[in-house]
Amino acid sequence: MIYIIGTGPGADEHMSIKAIEAINKADVIVGYKTYVNLIKNLIKDKEVCSLGMRKEVDRCMFALENALNGKVVGLVSGGDCGVYGMAGIMYEIAKPYLGKVKIEVVPGITSANAAAASLGAPLMHDYVTISLSDLLTDWQLIEKRMKYACKGDFVITIYNPKSHGRVEHINKIRDILLEYKDKNTPVGIVRNAKRDNEEVEITTIDEMLNHEINMSTMVIVGNSKTYICHKKMITPRGYNY
Amino acid sequence: MIYIIGTGPGADEHMSIKAIEAINKADVIVGYKTYVNLIKNLIKDKEVCSLGMRKEVDRCMFALENALNGKVVGLVSGGDCGVYGMAGIMYEIAKPYLGKVKIEVVPGITSANAAAASLGAPLMHDYVTISLSDLLTDWQLIEKRMKYACKGDFVITIYNPKSHGRVEHINKIRDILLEYKDKNTPVGIVRNAKRDNEEVEITTIDEMLNHEINMSTMVIVGNSKTYICHKKMITPRGYNY
Repeated sequence: MIYIIGTGPGADEHMSIKAIEAINKADVIVGYKTYVNLIKNLIKDKEVCSLGMRKEVDRCMFALENALNGKVVGLVSGGDCGVYGMAGIMYEIAKPYLGKVKIEVVPGITSANAAAASLGAPLMHDYVTISLSDLLTDWQLIEKRMKYACKGDFVITIYNPKSHGRVEHINKIRDILLEYKDKNTPVGIVRNAKRDNEEVEITTIDEMLNHEINMSTMVIVGNSKTYICHKKMITPRGYNY
Repeated sequence: MIYIIGTGPGADEHMSIKAIEAINKADVIVGYKTYVNLIKNLIKDKEVCSLGMRKEVDRCMFALENALNGKVVGLVSGGDCGVYGMAGIMYEIAKPYLGKVKIEVVPGITSANAAAASLGAPLMHDYVTISLSDLLTDWQLIEKRMKYACKGDFVITIYNPKSHGRVEHINKIRDILLEYKDKNTPVGIVRNAKRDNEEVEITTIDEMLNHEINMSTMVIVGNSKTYICHKKMITPRGYNY
């Protein structure tokens, strides 16, 4: 049995009851060390296998082997394991064994929703979820999607806006945003959403590059109706009041 | 003090610890009766104001009045209160009082992520979240957004696909999907995601209208890479394995 568990945005607080139960049931916990570390209070007496970044396939192989040996495995994944997380690759690795090994996905609160909560209410209308990581995705496709997201006047949530190897991507994306959207469109920047060291800033497309954007940042760009009020970012849905 | 609380997709099980704590702190619980009913075990001894559909503004006025009178209010909203939920309208109603009343948004697991977990791993790549409700949104804008979502080859999560007053919308949307996407593209249909009476079906754009789609349904349409394997819907992210 493999539980693929979304552990939510920060520490235990934003995790679901179901996720905690699944962790409790597990004999072995597998995960990226940052996320394993965030839930260390929950897994004190467990066998733990934590592996670094880009070791996703190894983690899944380890999980599968243990499950085939009769163990209950908790494969933990920050945020929602179903959004740029471990759910997909785990299913793919386990494909030849899906008759033998049971897999259950336990959803979590994904970073976009966590960051949105800290910003106010930016996701009250149709939105796009997009990652700027081109490790596994062609950069041209990312740019193409960003253009269509702008043309459709979607709110845009940006995952993985920057990392050591990809510092120019967010600059290129801002050029696209400037081409299609008003430069005063609100932009929310949340670093370490719902963790102890959370930092929240609200700015505009024009000014966004003057703020720190790193690997632990979620960027949310408003639609044409989004506005800022009392340091909160609000996308109206259209109610009359 | 007003906590706007995302109660997650079903009953208590998928709610976060933080959401439960916020409910416990509240003197008064306000919400749409369906959602209030789902968490009835948690609010036994509380003052409860449950109002029907389309009473969103009334619920917020009631919450605001109570908060201004010094009460701690828990305004509950199914799924994530920040996604087509109560967070936006509550901030808008409270605007003149944001200096006096404290508001905190407690995020929850939104229906798209809950349904995705039951389907397998359909949201492993960039996706669009779109509602077909035209109560507050011009239908032309919904169609326009759907076309751009198709052109960008996003996975598409569809909220409010059908209601009594809007039975034709999903048909029109399927016509758009057929125009831009392969008719064999996988479609996941989840009714009552993560509730006791959950029903999960995986079909194609071609066949989707032969399945029941109602107000409590989430529809997820794959991108060009999404496939079905052992009755699971998987969108690969692009790992080599």
